[in-house]
Formats: sequence, structure tokens, C-alpha cells
Amino acid sequence: MKLKCAVAGLGTNGAMHYAQLKQMDSVDIVAVSDPRLDELSDHVDLSGVEHTFTDYDALLGYGDFEAIFIFTPSGQHIEHIRKAAAAKKHIFCEKPLGKDESIEECEATLDFVRQQGVKLQIGFNRRFDPQFRDIHERVKAGEIGRPHIVRVVARDPFVLPYDFIRNSGGLIQDFAAHDFDMVSYQAGSRITEIYLQGTTLIDPGLAELNDIDTLTASCKLEKDGFGLIDESRKAVYGYDQRVEVFGEKGMLKAENVTESTVELYNDEAISLRKPLDYYLNRFKQAYIFEKASFIDSVVNDKPIVCTGEEALNAMRCCIAAQRSLDTGLPVKVSYE
Amino acid sequence: MKLKCAVAGLGTNGAMHYAQLKQMDSVDIVAVSDPRLDELSDHVDLSGVEHTFTDYDALLGYGDFEAIFIFTPSGQHIEHIRKAAAAKKHIFCEKPLGKDESIEECEATLDFVRQQGVKLQIGFNRRFDPQFRDIHERVKAGEIGRPHIVRVVARDPFVLPYDFIRNSGGLIQDFAAHDFDMVSYQAGSRITEIYLQGTTLIDPGLAELNDIDTLTASCKLEKDGFGLIDESRKAVYGYDQRVEVFGEKGMLKAENVTESTVELYNDEAISLRKPLDYYLNRFKQAYIFEKASFIDSVVNDKPIVCTGEEALNAMRCCIAAQRSLDTGLPVKVSYE
Amino acid sequence: MKLKCAVAGLGTNGAMHYAQLKQMDSVDIVAVSDPRLDELSDHVDLSGVEHTFTDYDALLGYGDFEAIFIFTPSGQHIEHIRKAAAAKKHIFCEKPLGKDESIEECEATLDFVRQQGVKLQIGFNRRFDPQFRDIHERVKAGEIGRPHIVRVVARDPFVLPYDFIRNSGGLIQDFAAHDFDMVSYQAGSRITEIYLQGTTLIDPGLAELNDIDTLTASCKLEKDGFGLIDESRKAVYGYDQRVEVFGEKGMLKAENVTESTVELYNDEAISLRKPLDYYLNRFKQAYIFEKASFIDSVVNDKPIVCTGEEALNAMRCCIAAQRSLDTGLPVKVSYE
Amino acid sequence: MKLKCAVAGLGTNGAMHYAQLKQMDSVDIVAVSDPRLDELSDHVDLSGVEHTFTDYDALLGYGDFEAIFIFTPSGQHIEHIRKAAAAKKHIFCEKPLGKDESIEECEATLDFVRQQGVKLQIGFNRRFDPQFRDIHERVKAGEIGRPHIVRVVARDPFVLPYDFIRNSGGLIQDFAAHDFDMVSYQAGSRITEIYLQGTTLIDPGLAELNDIDTLTASCKLEKDGFGLIDESRKAVYGYDQRVEVFGEKGMLKAENVTESTVELYNDEAISLRKPLDYYLNRFKQAYIFEKASFIDSVVNDKPIVCTGEEALNAMRCCIAAQRSLDTGLPVKVSYE
Repeated sequence: MKLKCAVAGLGTNGAMHYAQLKQMDSVDIVAVSDPRLDELSDHVDLSGVEHTFTDYDALLGYGDFEAIFIFTPSGQHIEHIRKAAAAKKHIFCEKPLGKDESIEECEATLDFVRQQGVKLQIGFNRRFDPQFRDIHERVKAGEIGRPHIVRVVARDPFVLPYDFIRNSGGLIQDFAAHDFDMVSYQAGSRITEIYLQGTTLIDPGLAELNDIDTLTASCKLEKDGFGLIDESRKAVYGYDQRVEVFGEKGMLKAENVTESTVELYNDEAISLRKPLDYYLNRFKQAYIFEKASFIDSVVNDKPIVCTGEEALNAMRCCIAAQRSLDTGLPVKVSYE
Repeated sequence: MKLKCAVAGLGTNGAMHYAQLKQMDSVDIVAVSDPRLDELSDHVDLSGVEHTFTDYDALLGYGDFEAIFIFTPSGQHIEHIRKAAAAKKHIFCEKPLGKDESIEECEATLDFVRQQGVKLQIGFNRRFDPQFRDIHERVKAGEIGRPHIVRVVARDPFVLPYDFIRNSGGLIQDFAAHDFDMVSYQAGSRITEIYLQGTTLIDPGLAELNDIDTLTASCKLEKDGFGLIDESRKAVYGYDQRVEVFGEKGMLKAENVTESTVELYNDEAISLRKPLDYYLNRFKQAYIFEKASFIDSVVNDKPIVCTGEEALNAMRCCIAAQRSLDTGLPVKVSYE
Repeated sequence: MKLKCAVAGLGTNGAMHYAQLKQMDSVDIVAVSDPRLDELSDHVDLSGVEHTFTDYDALLGYGDFEAIFIFTPSGQHIEHIRKAAAAKKHIFCEKPLGKDESIEECEATLDFVRQQGVKLQIGFNRRFDPQFRDIHERVKAGEIGRPHIVRVVARDPFVLPYDFIRNSGGLIQDFAAHDFDMVSYQAGSRITEIYLQGTTLIDPGLAELNDIDTLTASCKLEKDGFGLIDESRKAVYGYDQRVEVFGEKGMLKAENVTESTVELYNDEAISLRKPLDYYLNRFKQAYIFEKASFIDSVVNDKPIVCTGEEALNAMRCCIAAQRSLDTGLPVKVSYE
Repeated sequence: MKLKCAVAGLGTNGAMHYAQLKQMDSVDIVAVSDPRLDELSDHVDLSGVEHTFTDYDALLGYGDFEAIFIFTPSGQHIEHIRKAAAAKKHIFCEKPLGKDESIEECEATLDFVRQQGVKLQIGFNRRFDPQFRDIHERVKAGEIGRPHIVRVVARDPFVLPYDFIRNSGGLIQDFAAHDFDMVSYQAGSRITEIYLQGTTLIDPGLAELNDIDTLTASCKLEKDGFGLIDESRKAVYGYDQRVEVFGEKGMLKAENVTESTVELYNDEAISLRKPLDYYLNRFKQAYIFEKASFIDSVVNDKPIVCTGEEALNAMRCCIAAQRSLDTGLPVKVSYE
């Protein structure tokens, strides 16, 4: 039996998610909404979807589905989550949880979601990357004992367009949020303090957008132990995404996934293919798995893997991180 | 614009191909045929296919499609190719080209296909594996100069059921055909002589089926140079598929594709995940790419990557290989 | 023509260096000194050395050599360097430069060395590790453009005996000094600020020695860019020593050197041999190369690779690092 | 207590061995012989050797040593072994056992050695390579069960000078002898039949020397199972030496040893350092370990790792291999 679902938001990212959902056997997409529905026909195949709306409220008004996937703009997430919860729908919402909302507003929304008794998963896709997931499960299974140090490398292949960056929340909210979440996820522990350094080493123009292109972060963990993160907006060799967890009984680490295993030996060197070029390739499986996991949680009433509370924790970390960048000092993460 | 296609044969392998075709944007499956159509509903989703038949001839009788994918039993390939060519359809046929037919019968069929002016591709899927393809293209581009030695390792993860083996043509026809083709494909040269050794090291019971479980083969190439193949029916560590081409200016080699890049360091060893477990996983991409390549050949009138003639060459190699095993001597491959 | 040398200090480390010197063609060891000369005969082969002393001053009094290798206890380094310089000998001295001396005292010693016109090299052996050296030279040659992030992992295989730790200066002075030096060496830039976190995750007993077993450090570089270090006293899988430099045009990284290249594939995993077990194995070449480099500097009047000033910079970093650990705040490194 | 030894033959190879022996603590070199003793002073340091001779017989006449290392020209090995055995010295002799002697003459010599009760080791150095040794010991310990297929790759980095090749016995005797020995060593079984193909793909001029530059060989093993060998005189990427043993419970394989672990990631590829350039680097440890093993065998009366009988087996394989190349047919190896 398939889960009856709606999809809200069919922009670039939403269209990618939608195409994946269409190929999943466990899902039946019965309705979609997008304000620019007419312009989508080129790249989104809506055949087979019976109910289409240009308005989110109309979609909920229709309402004959159990779960909704929200890929609307970040600034609307909180509002759309609240409305979906009011309509008693289970919710998968792309990250981030909130954008300009205060922590308090987000908390209130999560409280409401809980009261309504619906499930909510936030799309921190990297948790579902097969490598990172493998590490997580083996850490949890005790293969390396208690974790001491979590290292995360996250480097993009090129500087994104200024127009995108301007609305992205900047390197900390757009990128580091993932990495704070990854440190917590792997360590099985919240981050209590962050010291973040950052600057523009690649593109000085970013300073005008009040943004940076390179950062490193030191994190203290609640259950003792440390996290170390480094990020860059431009790794010329591709999308560099690595995780390493060092513990009392060993280490688990995930190197990059490369384009192929072919090795060229010649008179100069041994040459291997580069890491996969971008997140759409590298995290393609992760995007599928996160949705499959959500569907499994709903259908079989299992716990959600990335909850709203965890997404909120990533927001709290971003706030502390930004303050650390501004002050040059380590800043405690507030969970009050 | 999509290519209108028919699919004949929806057994295990055919169903896998069919499912892949359904997810390809460039194809419109308008008709299928399978003698046991009624029993398929469990694992094959025929929704959206307007014309279904239990009879191959009836499918061709319907005929409103440009290309046909043939996944019927090996013993029917030659007959079904001939009929499809008579009906002026472009043909993708799973390997092998022929089974109990003589080389002459197969040649006559290929002649007829040519006369009818339709395209024919045989499904030697490994040519489309992204690693092996990468090697092929770089050898062709001259990256390692003239090839001197081609090495192919092909080891299955477990001994197949006797019922399957009995009808498979045995290790030489079922497995080594791929590897003779791989040697030719990578060397850009036909094999002129084969010395093959084989025996049962894993399962003595196979001797009763007149089959073997382990073989090595030395091949002489038309354009000078050598091929070396080894095969086993049981590699306990997974599906072991490797290719290496050594030439005057270097070497290209493809190691196995593993389940993940995660490394565990503990007090005993560094442990990596095993190679992908089986051909359905390892060659999943290859199966998609071979069909996409065929469609591209038909739609854009490009040369076929794996022709009937090449498939016939693999058959000629199998005949020489079998005689070598029987006589203990190297045997010339006849191309007359 | 061989360089006439003396060796002072034949304890465990000194004996290792002495054995290496004996096998180097470019050196003639004409004299040694060690207070416990009589007890050495078991593990040190002094045959062929004409002049042996129990007293450092007596060795210098003899004086018929051009260069001296100082492997005496850390607390005597400054004194022994000063005396050797006064005697106009070129000096190779094991790290650290000073122990309980103030920065000012060390600076005064370096000034005196300069006035005497003799060369002084401090034994930061890791600079001479073939992998780390290779990275350094390629960064310098511009292969990855301007360095943005330097990452250093340095993890010992087991907790050293308390007796040793008590006199070692602790994790910061004994271990991190190497890593601060490595960050500077690879980045081609001094460290201007350090934020260090540390604690006892492995052995709580170390707290009584006022020491830690795990640390992470974030470093700001003078020429922009960042350094990230993590250290542990106990990696159960061996001696873990890695360096990675990320820059505008690429990345250079050195993975661990393992015991062998042998891979075992079985039904559980692919297993590789562990990293080399300890510094004596991993840095064996480095210990040879650092002395060869010193000899080359003296004989051919070339610049010293690891100068007293650089060793002093590592001391300054340790002071800032300790203060950071004590205060929980980032601390500027003073170069005044 | 050190083993008193003599060294006969201080040509290029002998000088290398001699230098290694001088640095071994377990050996005391008391005498050497070489016909051109006067010309050696440049590259051989004879200081400390009390007795030097230009004549092998004179060396044996002196005789105050327990073991002799023979590095004289291949054509003299059999004669020198016989004389040393007559003088009751334990013998380490560089490979090959014999050159122009018949198998019968060699057998007679080995019989005589046995009668004299002295130990004899032949210098098949690759058995002592740490990687290949590791594989051997783990195969023997049963880690992969019964071996089914042994694969050996042996490729030189450049074509040797014609003057050397002319006296080397050609590719089969000079190179393949090692690889036949390696197959036996790893499989724990003698080779019973060989099919060898070879030609000149690199340097047609070698045909005039009646030699080849490329070969592949298929071997049948006494204990069932197969060996596959390929060799080339010119791998532009360095010295390519690999071994793989596939068995019922897994696979052990040794990849090349590279110059360093440093990886460069840039916009074109991931580049690694090449394999070690030549046998002097790659098998440096092996040369030390083979002599240490011999000394251990003599001093502690342990079995020899590479016996005269095993070296004789390699000669028998070379004879069969040459006949296979000449006839184009598989040839049985005669052990009668």
C-alpha cells in the first residue's frame, strides 16, 4: 500500500525531490502546489498527478493525503509546517527549519507539531549519505568505543552566484548548519560551545555581502570530546565531503566518493578520477534515502531520523557560531 | 520525442530491464509480450503499457513501434532477431547471440539483419560499465599507447543453482564469453588463439554437469599483444570484476567498486567494505547505459557499440576455448 | 671528505641517532660524551670512536671536530648550545630548544649563536619525513596555490609512562610543539593566534600530572589562512600522523604509512595492515634525513632547514596554547 | 656472537650485498675475494676486512670462516658451490643456481652439498619482500583456504643494455625464473605444466639476441590450481611487482609500493606518486632479509627458506617455458 502524499514547492530543489518521489514505489503523489505552476511544464512531469494548485492553502484545503513534502522557500518553512500540522499531515520539510524566525518561534512551532501528533522530519540530507550513515551506525554500535574527536570537511566546488548567496543565510547558515548537525549526529551528543574563524580567502567581494568563503570551527561536546570543522566555498578538485570519528577503540572515516575506480599509471604519476563534482551527484542516494526513511517512519510508526528539535539545535549552533565569528571568542550554545 | 519501443520477455532479467526502461525519459514502451503474462503482475508493473501479448509473433503483428528489446530465452534469440528484422524493427537483444545454433546460422541471421537495414545491439553489458568504458575510451584516445597485455578478473560470489547452470552453456559460454569480449574490446583487436585451463576446485559436483568452476585463459591478439583471464564461480568476498590494460605508455586499471568508502581503523587492521555483492548492483549503471546507447544509436543514427558481429566473435572464442579445455592445447579462433 | 663530528648524550634517543650517524658515509664520529659511559657498552657500539668523555665540557675541551650533535636532556639544551657556539662548533640539537628557560634566555642564546657564526639546527624531525617534506616542497612550488587550511593529525599509539610524561613538558610541549611547527612549515607562515581545547578522555590519572591526553587547536596564520590540529595520546590502531594542506588550486595530503600493501579480501571485509606502529619506525627516514640535511648545510654552506628561530616560534606557540587551555580563550602568539 | 663469513665476488650486485652485510650486527666479514680487487677501492669499503684475495680458491684455502656468500658470475655458481661445500662451508649463493650446466650436473651438486652436511640458500630475493612474505605466511596459515589461482605481475621499468641481456639468459631465465618460483612459493606447490607466449612488442632489436620483451605464462599446479604470470621489460611508470593469491576463503594481494603516500587533488585528477623505481629500491629490504634469514638458519640450525632444490625447480620451469615458447604448445615440467 502506497502512502498518499502532497508536494509543495517545485523549484529547482523541489523538482529534484519530486522526480525522485515519482520513482519510489512506496509513494503516491496525489497533489502538488507551486505558485508558478504554468512555467513548470518544461522540467517537471506532472502527468498522473490529479490535483494541482498554485496556492499552498488550497493544497491543504484539498487535503486528501497523509503526508506532505515541503520544498517551498526557506522563509516560509515555519509557516508551512504550522499549517500542515494544523491539518494533521505528517511533514517532511527541506532544511533549514527556520530562517528569520527566532528560536522561540521555532520552538513554539515544534511544540504545536508535537501537540498535533504528526511526525516532522527536516531534510538534513547528509545524515542519509550511505558513508556517513554507515559511520553513524557503527559508532552507535560501539565499534570504536566512545567518540573523542569528530572531524568534518565540507568544501564546495565553486563559489555560488551572489544572488543565491544573498538569500542563503551565508556560509554559516547554509553550509555550517549541516556540519554542526553532522558533528552532533556522529558524536551522539549536542555541541555546547563553538569557536569559529572565518574570512574571505577566495573571493573578497563576498565581504560586501557580509559573508565569508572559508571557515574553521572548534566545537565542545556535551558528552566530552571535540568537533573540528573546515569549510571552503571553492575546492577546485570537486565536492569534498569527508567525515572522521576517532574514539577510544578506533577510528571510522569516510573518504570522498570518486567518479570511478580507474587508475592511470604513466611516467608522471598514478592518476585517479576526481571526487564526484557536486551535491546533486554525491548526495543523490542520500536524497532518496531521507525520503524513504520518512515514509518508513510514517507508515510503520518508527522514530524520525532527523527531527525538528535536531534541526533547531543546528540553528542554535549557527547563532553561537556567528557570534563567535563576530567577537573572535568561543561562544556557548544556548539550549534554554 | 520518445522512441516507441516493444519489450519481449519479462522473466527475471527481462523484468529488470523493463523496470529500467520505464524510468528512461527517451523511451515509450507501447507493447510487451511474454507467454506467462498472467503470472507477472506481482513483480512487473504493466500500467501504462497499452498493448500486451502472450505471443512474440502477435507482438510483431501489432508492430506499431520502431525498436524492440528482446529478453526471451537464449535459445530463441536467433529466431526472434530474424523475425524482428523481417518486421524492420531495430533490435536490442540480450546476450548471447545464439545458443545451439551453428556459427553459420548466426552469420546468416546477421547478414539478413544487415540487408533489412536495421540496427542490432547485443547486450554485453560490461562494455557499458562506467569503469570499463572509461578504460576503453582512454585506451582508444592513446593515453597508454599501444596495448600489450589485457588482464581480466571475473569471479562470481557464489555457485549458481544447478538448474540454472544446466541451461547456461556452462562457465565458458555464460561467463568467459563476456571476458573474451572484454579482452577484444579493450585491446581493440580480435583474439586469434586461446589456451584455456579449467577444473572444479570449488564444487566437484559440477563435473557431472560437464562443467567447471575455475578457469584461466591465455589469448593471442590479432594486433599482437596478449590477454589473460581468470574466472571463478565463488569469491567469498563478493563480485570481483577487474580489468587492466598495460601498454607502451602506461597502464589503466579498474579496481572493484566497493560498497562504501568507509574505513575502520582498529587494533587489528584497517578494514574496508567489500566489493559490491553481485552483478545486479555492480552493473546496474551498465544495464542502463547499454540501453541508452542503443536508443541513442537508433534515434541519432550512430554506430552500435556492441554489434552482432562482435557477439558472434565471442561465440567463436567460446568454441575455441572449449576445444582448448578438451584437448589441453592452444586452439586458433576461426573467423572464416 | 667526511665531516668530523662529536656526539653528546647517548641515552635512548641519542643512541638511536648515534647508530644512524655511524652508518652515514658523510660523517666521521671522532668523539662522544655521556655521563654514564660505562653503562652504555651493551647497546652502543663505541668501537672506532677514538675519544670518549663522561663530561660535556671535556668533550668541548678536546675540540678537534667541526660539528656537534647534542642529545643531552632537554633541560641542558640551552646551556650546551651556548657552550658549543662559544667553541665555534656547528650545532645539531634535538628538540626542544629550551625547557624551563624563558623566551628571552633562548633568544639571547640564538643571538650568541649568530654572533659566533656557527650553524644551528633543531631536531624537528617531522619536517624531514619524506611525505611531509614532499608536501612542503610542492606547496612552495605553487602546486596548490596559496594555502588556506592546514590540517594536522598527530596521535600516539599508547599513553607513555607517567615517569616520562612528568618530565616531558606535557602534551602541549612534547607533542603539540611539533604540530605548531608543522602548520607553520606547511603554510609558510607564522601562527598568530591559538585556540586550544584539551582534556583527559583516555586516562583521568593524567589530570594529577596536570596534563591532558586529547586536544584540538585552531590556529590563525600571519599570511591569512587557518591551521587545525588534533592530538591524542592513544590511537589503538597505531601511530597516526597525517598532514593536509588545502589551497586555492588544490589539496595535498599525506595519509599514514602502513606496514605493507597487502590486502586481505574475505567474507567480512577488505583488510589492510595498520599504520606503522611508532615514531621510531614511521620517522626513521626522517631522523636520517634531518642529520644528512644538517651535514649538507655545514659542508656546503647551505641554509639550515629547521633553525633555532623556528624552534623558538614553536615554544612561543606552546606558551599561547597553554594559556588558551587555562583560560578557555583564543590567545595571541607573542613574537616581540 | 657473530657469524664469521667470507664474501666472494664484489661486482655491482656483490658490492650491494657486501655493503648490507657490513651493517648487519649478526655478521663478521673476515675475508673477501674478487679477481679485480684493486679496482674496487672506489665503491667498496674493505676497511676492517682482514683477509682479501683475488682468487676464490685462495679464499677457501684461508678458510677461517663458517659461511660464504657467493656473488660471482652465474656461470661459476655451480663450481663455487661445489668447492665451498667441499670445504664444509655453509653457502648463500645469488640466483641462478646454474647457467649452462645441465639439470643433472646441478642435481649432482645439490647431492654433494647434502652429503657434506652444509646448508645452501639460493638468492631468490622476492620471497623475502615483506609484502610477498606476508602473503606467503598468511596463505600458509590458512587465511584464504586452499589457493586456486596465483597471479604474478613483473614488469621492469626500462629495457636493460644489450650487453647485459646477452649474458642474462634472456627474459625467461633472468626474469621468469623469479616468477615461476613465486607461483610455487605462494601456492605451496610445484608447477607441472607451462604454456608461455612471448614476443617483442617494445624493442624489435631484441629478436636478434634471440630474446623477447613481453610474455605471459599459464601454469598448472601439482596440487591443482593455476598460475598466471605476465612480464614486460618496460613499464614507463616504474617497477611493477604485484602478487595475488585467490583461494577458497578469500584473496590476498599485494599492490605496488609507492614512493610516498602523498596525494595531490587538483582540477584535473587525484595524483599519487609512482611505484618505487627499481629493484634496488623495491627489494632493498628483501635483500637484507634473505641474508638475515640465511644467517639465522645457520646459527640456529633452522630450515633454509629458499633451497637449492627449489632453485633447481625454477630452472626446470624455465626449460619447459622456453620449449613452450619455441613450440607454441603447453609443456610439462620434468622433475625426473
